[in-house]
Parts: sequence; structure tokens; C-alpha cells
Amino acid sequence: MKKIQGIIPPMITPLLDDDVLDVEGAKNLVENMIGAGVHAIFILGTTGEAQSLSYKCRYEFVELVCGAVAGRIPVLVGITDTSLAESVKLAEKAKECGAVGVVAAAPYYYAPSQQELIEYYTELADKVCLPLYIYNMPSNVKVFLEAKTVVALAQHPNIVGLKDSSHNMTYLNSVKYLLRDMPDFALYVGPEELTGEAVLHGMDGGVNGGANMFPELYVAMYNAAVAQDVEKVKELQKQIMAISTTIYSVGKYGSSYLKGVKCAASLLGYCNDHLAWPYRKFGAEERAKVAEALKALGAEVKNA
Amino acid sequence: MKKIQGIIPPMITPLLDDDVLDVEGAKNLVENMIGAGVHAIFILGTTGEAQSLSYKCRYEFVELVCGAVAGRIPVLVGITDTSLAESVKLAEKAKECGAVGVVAAAPYYYAPSQQELIEYYTELADKVCLPLYIYNMPSNVKVFLEAKTVVALAQHPNIVGLKDSSHNMTYLNSVKYLLRDMPDFALYVGPEELTGEAVLHGMDGGVNGGANMFPELYVAMYNAAVAQDVEKVKELQKQIMAISTTIYSVGKYGSSYLKGVKCAASLLGYCNDHLAWPYRKFGAEERAKVAEALKALGAEVKNA
Amino acid sequence: MKKIQGIIPPMITPLLDDDVLDVEGAKNLVENMIGAGVHAIFILGTTGEAQSLSYKCRYEFVELVCGAVAGRIPVLVGITDTSLAESVKLAEKAKECGAVGVVAAAPYYYAPSQQELIEYYTELADKVCLPLYIYNMPSNVKVFLEAKTVVALAQHPNIVGLKDSSHNMTYLNSVKYLLRDMPDFALYVGPEELTGEAVLHGMDGGVNGGANMFPELYVAMYNAAVAQDVEKVKELQKQIMAISTTIYSVGKYGSSYLKGVKCAASLLGYCNDHLAWPYRKFGAEERAKVAEALKALGAEVKNA
Amino acid sequence: MKKIQGIIPPMITPLLDDDVLDVEGAKNLVENMIGAGVHAIFILGTTGEAQSLSYKCRYEFVELVCGAVAGRIPVLVGITDTSLAESVKLAEKAKECGAVGVVAAAPYYYAPSQQELIEYYTELADKVCLPLYIYNMPSNVKVFLEAKTVVALAQHPNIVGLKDSSHNMTYLNSVKYLLRDMPDFALYVGPEELTGEAVLHGMDGGVNGGANMFPELYVAMYNAAVAQDVEKVKELQKQIMAISTTIYSVGKYGSSYLKGVKCAASLLGYCNDHLAWPYRKFGAEERAKVAEALKALGAEVKNA
Repeated sequence: MKKIQGIIPPMITPLLDDDVLDVEGAKNLVENMIGAGVHAIFILGTTGEAQSLSYKCRYEFVELVCGAVAGRIPVLVGITDTSLAESVKLAEKAKECGAVGVVAAAPYYYAPSQQELIEYYTELADKVCLPLYIYNMPSNVKVFLEAKTVVALAQHPNIVGLKDSSHNMTYLNSVKYLLRDMPDFALYVGPEELTGEAVLHGMDGGVNGGANMFPELYVAMYNAAVAQDVEKVKELQKQIMAISTTIYSVGKYGSSYLKGVKCAASLLGYCNDHLAWPYRKFGAEERAKVAEALKALGAEVKNA
Repeated sequence: MKKIQGIIPPMITPLLDDDVLDVEGAKNLVENMIGAGVHAIFILGTTGEAQSLSYKCRYEFVELVCGAVAGRIPVLVGITDTSLAESVKLAEKAKECGAVGVVAAAPYYYAPSQQELIEYYTELADKVCLPLYIYNMPSNVKVFLEAKTVVALAQHPNIVGLKDSSHNMTYLNSVKYLLRDMPDFALYVGPEELTGEAVLHGMDGGVNGGANMFPELYVAMYNAAVAQDVEKVKELQKQIMAISTTIYSVGKYGSSYLKGVKCAASLLGYCNDHLAWPYRKFGAEERAKVAEALKALGAEVKNA
Repeated sequence: MKKIQGIIPPMITPLLDDDVLDVEGAKNLVENMIGAGVHAIFILGTTGEAQSLSYKCRYEFVELVCGAVAGRIPVLVGITDTSLAESVKLAEKAKECGAVGVVAAAPYYYAPSQQELIEYYTELADKVCLPLYIYNMPSNVKVFLEAKTVVALAQHPNIVGLKDSSHNMTYLNSVKYLLRDMPDFALYVGPEELTGEAVLHGMDGGVNGGANMFPELYVAMYNAAVAQDVEKVKELQKQIMAISTTIYSVGKYGSSYLKGVKCAASLLGYCNDHLAWPYRKFGAEERAKVAEALKALGAEVKNA
Repeated sequence: MKKIQGIIPPMITPLLDDDVLDVEGAKNLVENMIGAGVHAIFILGTTGEAQSLSYKCRYEFVELVCGAVAGRIPVLVGITDTSLAESVKLAEKAKECGAVGVVAAAPYYYAPSQQELIEYYTELADKVCLPLYIYNMPSNVKVFLEAKTVVALAQHPNIVGLKDSSHNMTYLNSVKYLLRDMPDFALYVGPEELTGEAVLHGMDGGVNGGANMFPELYVAMYNAAVAQDVEKVKELQKQIMAISTTIYSVGKYGSSYLKGVKCAASLLGYCNDHLAWPYRKFGAEERAKVAEALKALGAEVKNA
């Protein structure tokens, strides 16, 4: 399989109610993202609230999105779980529906050592039926996939890339340097604030939540960085930061990012803004602030 | 329902292989614990590796243990999950099989705020069909159920107690003091090293992993503390610390406790020592150290 | 030297202004504590805001308190520092003024490994001219003095005890068990909420901040615990928790304990409530809440 | 004062023994750095082991370096301290010796809230006699200077810049965006692995430890990034990563960076490699590994 490069939105999971998918909303988002030129779609990640959904709902969403995408671009499916058996089973569903890869952060109830992570991921990569991307997400899973661990795992034939959401660019640069002789191993950066500099430095793309709302902006950033057009990168970076410092900063809890993305997607007319437990959507006051931020960004608010 | 008081072992989940229950081993453990006079059994907790098992396996284990206990003592079932819907569903299975209560730590992928935890637990308590015990387990779930949060949740008619595994006795004493007018709210301490002092200070019991191996010791400690026999408490405390500082300290990773308990249970002849991913059982060298520690404790090693 | 046992208040440093000692206030506190029967006084600890004071001010305070105590009870001096040379120098001042021991938490800018902590404390113990107590204070110094580290350091002839402020009683019980053959090694608990249970289990005393305000209460707790009078311990525990859950909980920051103790000492008429940077004393609203809490505790507020 | 832009090495403090400066070594380093074209020198920072030195030694080092630099380039002095009074005093010494600015991380024994940090830094900026740079160093001081806090503090006329050593480029990009209307406020990145991308994105320079050894490399990186020569940046980045992933990774503790830099400076013939407590220099085996790494980098090892 050719390495995927570019913008891979971590798609939100639109919900009408607890564990009830917003089917039309999901289709709207898929069409908008494909229309904007994103290079792949990643579902059931952190932005997708995968862990908060029932398994039934996760399986339905895999079917729904793979069906909507219909092979136009690659679909990656998050299989992060505390149970290796459940990860393997979800990977089977993903393959059956046409996804081309699976993504797994570390198991997140216990805190395995680096050696235990190597053993765990080796077993997982042996067992899953699709290429596996490993996912460094220390704020949620408590453990950090150290650079040496990534290097060890990159030797496994079925481990094909890393998504890093640590915000620590020293780390990602270290991984890249240590894997300099393995150019086929994909390196993606999670935070959209870092896509420009990561791609300028040779990373393969961004798994950027903001692409649920404004996919064309992140595609433009990717293209500018690949072209080494630093002035364009800096100009687009301002737009990305304008989103990041407003929409993701409403509300007082650590969940502002998730709530902000879903609220904005709703205001832009794509889908419902219901969130899965343990989170609830923004109230009227916070919704008004997100609407205001969207207007300041020049976006058309259809659903205030 | 009368408040449960005493020793409530957090039962290990004996496995023959990945996701394959050791049925005979589980029955042996149940008989040994009931024979020793434990006051209830708690399954699918942290010591039970619940998060590492497939759902199918969790459901089978609820059936197996409830069947083996057959109503002789109360059974509590851990329903900790990142998906509220899955917690509710598992509670239904628990009730159907005859369990009398369910136990839930905070959802553990995201890190909810205290206010979000109150909303989450309120919803969970409304939805589950059995009395709910909340469970403070910050090392695994990242968030701490602050004393004020517990006080708020204790007002819910279906939230009936707290299990605290924080090791922070200032916290547990604070909760007890703040709930001094609610004597029916149960307070259990997780770490067995603290059962003596907790019960001396009026807590309701211990959810002590060591009771998988030596249930009579923890029952004796509970009885001595209830009787305010400080000399006896101090004497038993030495035996408990002798276990804690040897069996749980073999091996170099943070998982020594889990590996040690299962290894010891195997050496004592109760059940297999297979662990669920991401952990693997002790190798021969570590197993020999646990055997040695058991012998030094005066235990009969049947299965070295 | 005979092991010190009992209540050792970690004395606050009364200030009139930034870096200006409240000499009369300090003398009032000393007289009140000695009058209440405390067994020693510990100055320049965390409660004493040592790190926030200039060195000149720290040296003056050693002189002041040692002079005021005048040998009636032992004085211990905190020498915690990031510079070993400064610790040694302050120990010399302490000895010169008549203190009988020094107390040091780990150096707190870098985060040394356990092996580096052993080397550091060994050097410090070799160099200081007074017996050294090591001090486990992980919330402030980032590193935890693991039980095995304490055991290693306890072998040094000039390391004579441990003060533990981790709130983790599993840890303190482990240290006690591992040092069961070294009864002369002193074990003190920092948090006053734990003095009762710690002394019941054989620890040597409490370094309890509340004894700045109500020394007789903590002395009574120590005596009840030594006498193994569990009913009395439980009764006194309620009074201690009433202080802990009110006076230390006013205000919204992590500094409520420090601000609360100084505010209460001022309201009780002992001394000024000025705090050293980076903290400022409570404003009028919070001061009124502390006054209210003191009245509810039956204390006489002289200085509202 | 004109904003300083470029490479500002955080100079190590060469020592012959505990608290004994290596005067010749310091002069060698200064000459080498100035010769290579660095834009300023920063002393008594984290790399300078400031907190581990006695005050006497810190004062001597300010004199020594300011004297050696003799006004050829600006000198910045770290005044990070837990005591505001000591910070102010050290700033006076710095000014007296000719330094042009001071740098302060948050006070690091207690953990102030963001509001308390604003009050603290405001007081400090009012009191110090030189322009103040604030310094985000969460791994050492426990608190993070949040972007909003930096924005608030940037309004103070005597706070002129930020050094960020968090490794979190999302954060630094956020600060830059929020301060887009204050182009005179200086933004420096600590980790040398990030200087290229930071300067490409418009930051003002790097405070890079590796410039103690190879100042010309970091100056070249700064120049390439200012020139937006992405190919050159990527080529130099490989050299920087080759240093970072070898010399800073010898040894098993968190202190490998500090030990590695001093060891390499010694091997290159600049100065002694003695470290201040709580750290000790590398032993023969680790020194050999650093020597090997230096040779692989093409450096001339004079002092193996």
C-alpha cells in the first residue's frame, strides 16, 4: 500500500442523542471533506469520541462512513481499546466495510511500561487484519510511546506509521530522525497548530480536528508546506491559530476542544452537536460565543 | 438493603489463555474466600483486569461467579467503562445473575472535570438497575473524585457507597467527616495496608486484593479493628505488610501487584496465572521469588 | 540523642511585611506551643514558607526562635535547598543557635532519580553538623523518596528519621515495616488528619500545622493514640477534621492551607497574617469565613 | 532597548569542584561562542545549574562572565528563585556587572495558580532593575505559564519577552498569535530541536544548550530559518538531531542532557565536567560513549 500523505481529518461522530447516530450529519461531513480534497478520513479517534460510544454504535459508524465514502478516499478506523480482543474484532469490521488501516493508542486503564507496550503492540499488529498505525496520545492514555519504542515497533511489517498528538515537536523530530532510513513509515501530527511546521520538516500530514469544519484550510496548509512556501504557511497559520485560540477555548473545562468542534459543525449546518457522556454539549451562552467566533472568522453561520 | 461491612475481596479473573476463563480456578477461589468468612465478593475491578477482557468474557465471568456464590454472600460487579451505555448494559447482566450492587470508577479516556463527573455519575445512577458504589482510582483513571464531589453524589438515592484506592487517608478521613450525618453511606478502603487503620477509624471495610490468597488474614484484621483491639491490629498489620512488601514488589514494572497476586494464587494451587494483555505473567525467575516469599510467609506452595 | 516523640509543630514564620519578621508574633506562638506541651518545634519547613524568605530572613528566624525557646524543648530547622552548600551553611547556623537537628526535603529544581537521591542525601548527611531528618514532600519537590531509598539512607549514622507528608499511608506503613529492626529511626507524619492513626500504628509523632493554632488538641491526640484509647482518638479526630475541612478549604487556590493557618493565627491574636511571595494573605471576605469557622470550632476570635 | 534576536546559548557553569568555578573553562566557552557569532549569552539558567550553586558562586559567575564578555554581546542573567527578595538582589548584581536583562521562571517550591503567577511576576517586574524575560519551564517548576498569563504579563512595561522550554509548539504558536500586535515582545524557544521551525514561524531565536559545544551550528540554523531556506533548515536539523539523539541520551536518568553537555564540553577541551549536586558527572563508560558520539559527529575530541 502506498503511504497516505496529506490531511486526514479525525472525524467527529455526529449524534442525535445518546448512542443514536446523526446519519445525515455524517454524510454531510463526509461530502464536505471529500469535496475539499482531504486525503483520507480517520474515524473513531479521540475527536470521534470513540471510547464514549457503545460498541454497537461504533460498528454502525464504521459501516456508515465507509459506505458514504465509497472508496473515494482511504478510511482509517480507530481501534484503541483496553481489551486487545475488542480491538482485533473492530479491525475485522473495519476491513469488512472497506477501511484500509487501523489506528491504536496504548491500552489506557493500566499504564504499561515501554517494554510491555512493545509486546502489546507486537501482538496487536500480528492479530489485526489491516495495516496498523500507532498513536501517541499521552494526555488521554497516561503513557508516552517513547521514540525508542516507536523505532522498535516500526520494524514490524504490519506497523506502518505513527500519529503523534503529544504537542511535543522535539519528540516527533526525534522519531523522524531515528527513522530516517525508513521513509515508508508514515508520520502524522495530530494538533492542527503544528501541521505547517511538521510538513515543512518532512512529516507526512496532519490529523487535524479543525478539518471537520474547514477542510479546505488544512488542505491548503498541507499544500503550502509541501511546496515549502513559507510565507503562505505563515499566512495560513494565522487562520489556523485564529480558530484554535477562539473556538477551542470557549468554556472552562478540559473538554473545550471537543465541545467547540461539534458546536461549530452544528452552527455551520453540517450536523447535530450532541456529545456522548461524560460530556454534554455547550449551552446557549457558550454556543453564542462559538457563533461569534465563527463569524469573526468569516464563516457563514447557518444554524445559530 | 443493609450496608455491607467487612472484607470484600476484589477477585482476580482466572484465565487459562487470552479471553478463556479458568472455570475451576474461579470456583476454587470462591469456595476458599467464602470458607474464610469474607463478607462479599467484588468482581471485574482493577484487580480483576476487567478492562483487559472482552465483553463476552466479562459477561461469562459474571455468570460464573454469581452461579458459584449462589447467594451465600453478596456479589458486587465492576461496571467501570468509558461508555455509559456499556456500563448500564453490564449492570443489567449483573442484576439478572443475582449481583446486589455495581461499582464504577470514572470514565477513563477523557479527564472530566468535577462538575462533569457529578453529571456523569448522576446519569449513571439514574440508569443502572442496582445500587451504585463510586470508586476513586486516580492512578488508573487520571481524575480524583474530590471529597466535595463525593458529598454531592452521596445525596443521590441510588449511590450507596465509595471505594477509595487513592492511598490518601487524609482524603478518606475528610469524606467520612463530611458525611458524618449519613451513616448508611458505605466507605471502603482499597489498599489492604490501610484496612486496619481505616476500620479503627470507623470505615466499613476493605476491598483487599490479598484476600484472593489469604482471605482469613484480612477477615481477622477486620474483626480486630472492629473490636478496637489495637495490639491485634498491629500484629496482623505486620503480616499484611510482609505480603505487601514482598509478593507485590517482585518484578520491575508498575504491574507487580497484579502479576504477584495471580502468580501467588497459582502457586497456592487455586488457579492459573495467565494475565490478560497488556500484561504477561511472571517468568520462571520471578515465579521462584514469589514462591520463596510465600514460603517465608508460612504458606504451603503446592504448585511451584 | 534520644528519639523525639510527640507533636512537633511546623511553625509558621510570622511576618509584618515582605521579609520583615513579626518578632512579637513569633514569641507568642512559641509560648503558646510550649505551654500546650508540644514536644519540639520545627521551623523553616513548608508551613514556615522557608523557600519564600530571603536567606537573611531565614537566619534571623533561626536566631529568634532558638532564643525564644531557650532550650526548653528541642528545635529542628529546615535546611531544604536546591544548593547543598546553602543547606550545610544553614545547618551551621542552626547548630550555633542551639537547634538539635535539621530537616531536608529533596533538592527541588531538578528531579533526581532514586539513586541520585541516595548519593545526594549521603553527601548532605556527611557534611551537616547536626542529625539529619529526611523529608518526603512529593507535591512540592516532584520526587518521591521511595521506601527502598529511605531504607538505604536509614543506614547512615547521621540520618535519624523521616518526616512524611505524602498523605500516602501505605507508603509510611511500608517504611515502618521495612525498618522494623531499627526502632531508633524516627517516623513522623506531616498531615494532622493522619496523626491519630499513624501513632496508633506505632509512628513517633506528628508534624502538624494545626498546632500553630491549637497545639493542645494535637498533643491530646498524640497522648490518646499512645494510650491506644481508640474512642478518644475518634473523638479528637472529629475536631481535627472540623479544622481541616473548614479553615484549610477557604479560597480557591492550592494555597488555602498556608493562607488559612496564618489567617487563623492572626484572628486568634497570635501574630500578623502577612504571607511571603508568591502568596498574598486572605482578603476581607475570606478572612471573615475563617473567623466564622473558628467561632464554630469554639475558638475565641480576638482580632476579627 | 532593541529586541535581541538569534542564538542565545544557555551557558553551562564550568566547575573545578563543588562550588569552585573553572575560570579558564568559562573564558574558553565565552570566546568560542562569541567567535561563532552567537547573539547573546544567558547564564544561570537550567543548563547553568544555577539552583544547585551557592549564592556566592552565582554572584562570582555573573562577575566572571560579564567581565569576559566585556560588552561585546548582551548578557542575560537567570534570577529564578523561590524568594523574590533574592531574585531582586541578584538582578542588582547583574546590572552592576553590565548584564542587560534578567530571566525568571516561576517560583518552584509551591505551585502558584495562574492568578498568583500574574501577581508574582508583576511584583518582580516592578522591583527588578533590568528588563525581565519570563521563562516557561514546567518540567522543573511544576507550573505552566498559560498563554493567557503570558498575554497579561506582556502588558507590563518591564516584561520584554518569553523563553519557552515546554517543547509544546502549540503553546508557543498560541502565544505568538495572541501577541501578534506586540512585535517587540521577544519569543525564544529553549529546545534546540525546535529552533528551526520556531524561527521559520517568526519566533526570535533559540536558547539552545548545544551552542555550548557547537555554537556555529545553531547560528547557521538561525540564519537559514531567517532566510526561509527550508532545504538548509532541514539539512542542519539533521545535524542538530544527531547531537540530540546521541549526546543527550547517554545514561539512564533524567539528567542525561546536563551531564551530556558538560561531558562533551570537557571532551572538546573547553572546560571541566564537574557537576553540582544533586548530580555527578558521567563515569568512564558513559564518557567513552559521549566521546564516540562526538567523533561520529565529526568533532575533534581533545580530552578523551
